[in-house]
Amino acid sequence: MHSPVVLGLDFGGTKIAAAVCEPNGARLGATTVDTLAEGGARATLERGIGAARGLLASAAPDRPLAAVGVATFGIPGEDGVALAPAVPGWSDIALGRELREAFAGARVSMATDVKAAAQAELAWGALAGCDPGIYLNLGTGLAVAIVAGGSVVLGRHGASGEIGYNLRSLGDVGLPLGERQPLEEAVSGMALLREASALLPYATGAVDVFTRAGDDPRMARLLDDFVAELAFHLVNLAVAVDPERIVVGGGMVRSWHRLETDLRRALEAAVPFPPELVPAAFPFDAPLMGALALGTAAAREAQSEGAAA
Amino acid sequence: MHSPVVLGLDFGGTKIAAAVCEPNGARLGATTVDTLAEGGARATLERGIGAARGLLASAAPDRPLAAVGVATFGIPGEDGVALAPAVPGWSDIALGRELREAFAGARVSMATDVKAAAQAELAWGALAGCDPGIYLNLGTGLAVAIVAGGSVVLGRHGASGEIGYNLRSLGDVGLPLGERQPLEEAVSGMALLREASALLPYATGAVDVFTRAGDDPRMARLLDDFVAELAFHLVNLAVAVDPERIVVGGGMVRSWHRLETDLRRALEAAVPFPPELVPAAFPFDAPLMGALALGTAAAREAQSEGAAA
Repeated sequence: MHSPVVLGLDFGGTKIAAAVCEPNGARLGATTVDTLAEGGARATLERGIGAARGLLASAAPDRPLAAVGVATFGIPGEDGVALAPAVPGWSDIALGRELREAFAGARVSMATDVKAAAQAELAWGALAGCDPGIYLNLGTGLAVAIVAGGSVVLGRHGASGEIGYNLRSLGDVGLPLGERQPLEEAVSGMALLREASALLPYATGAVDVFTRAGDDPRMARLLDDFVAELAFHLVNLAVAVDPERIVVGGGMVRSWHRLETDLRRALEAAVPFPPELVPAAFPFDAPLMGALALGTAAAREAQSEGAAA
Repeated sequence: MHSPVVLGLDFGGTKIAAAVCEPNGARLGATTVDTLAEGGARATLERGIGAARGLLASAAPDRPLAAVGVATFGIPGEDGVALAPAVPGWSDIALGRELREAFAGARVSMATDVKAAAQAELAWGALAGCDPGIYLNLGTGLAVAIVAGGSVVLGRHGASGEIGYNLRSLGDVGLPLGERQPLEEAVSGMALLREASALLPYATGAVDVFTRAGDDPRMARLLDDFVAELAFHLVNLAVAVDPERIVVGGGMVRSWHRLETDLRRALEAAVPFPPELVPAAFPFDAPLMGALALGTAAAREAQSEGAAA
């Protein structure tokens, strides 16, 4: 019998990425298709499954599938995906059940994209051996993952690390979500772009704020406020966790030199034992890497249970 | 040979408590002596060791000591105790080494008092089975412990949970500790007493603020501000951890009815999956219970290593 392979699947808001690898992580192939969120959740799911099947047929013909690791926006569960507004209807997709049916016989392991990214950094990247550690995702949105005891802390409902929901000030205490601005609406790539667009109509991404900050004092001020508020929340989280290292991933890592100095200064001034602060090993494709990490871990579990049985 | 026992030792700022128990936790006896911090760290250590030896001789005569669990203010290490200003010189006591010498042959396991309390709640109390969970200590000081994967998260330097160092506002970002007011100086039993004393010269504890808040609007306002700022930091921590439950211990639990409503309302308004909020099972002697929990765990480890050898 041919030896088994592992599939990784990353459902993102604009693209779905799939990769197939050996159980040891060696990659055999990868592919990407558009999410086409406007087509709805069912079509998105089927496009992802179709792309994965095509990839398996071409990159690993005739080899059995041991496990599927899945990363997605939102918090994936057997019967739905929580906190997932990016694709209409995605919250009602029974992701666990659907994928188990689509890839019958394979073990399915799912995680939020940021937790999957942290899993990849823990398995193969900048969080390897860190206990505890923090993964900070600075992308379109804002979230972290806490690593402790060699695992990503999932939380009771898979919602740990969703600091985009943080309160911003004492005045927010007691207000329902609809009556306050959660942190993500002020501190994220999306928020930075929105604020910049009012001043720079041609801005297409947060990166424009960074590139113009050198000669546009309005952009410099936007960035200063952004980094200060990010630092406030990162410092308090680092005080609570006492991490060995904070690893930063996501699209804004492209402007690492601008973020690093202020964040490090804030951590060193305030945290009793300041952690290291480093960019992620896989800043841009960590969710897919994380899906593969989840898949290879699930394959190992399946194998050791099989060996024990 | 007689069966072994376990010793728990809690070094507090005003009292040292010791207890001896069976390896299964059944208590055989306990004692308390004054810390007498003004006598210095060496005298404090010797008073604690002397009290423990006396207790062992009376409560468990002729029985070997398998392990010693130790709780202390500050972060205990082999060669010193970090962040421990309560007893002069305590930071220079090589606590691990000294206790290993004093109780030769016994395994020594040490933790910060709040982490020890969380350990007790995890082993026998309100955090049993919670993954993850948060222990919030509202005593003279302010700290939390995070429980994940069945263990208390220690942090890279044993300093996780020391949220008394938190930044209070964006204006604090980048300031060294000496130039800002850390959270504990505003939100703790000590801070509440200090502020109340300016208005109520006879106040002797934070409890006076609670008992007078019903008919003294100044006390009511102090409490409102206190609870709101506590809630701000507790909400953001709960968002990051997604705990099943938050367990509150420490002396202020005596005023639980006043704290509970506002804290719960803040959590339910802001946290995507609001955790349960309950008082600790051992709100007042949890550090000693925790020392016993550490000791019994160390005894089990020693036994299983002995059995494996």
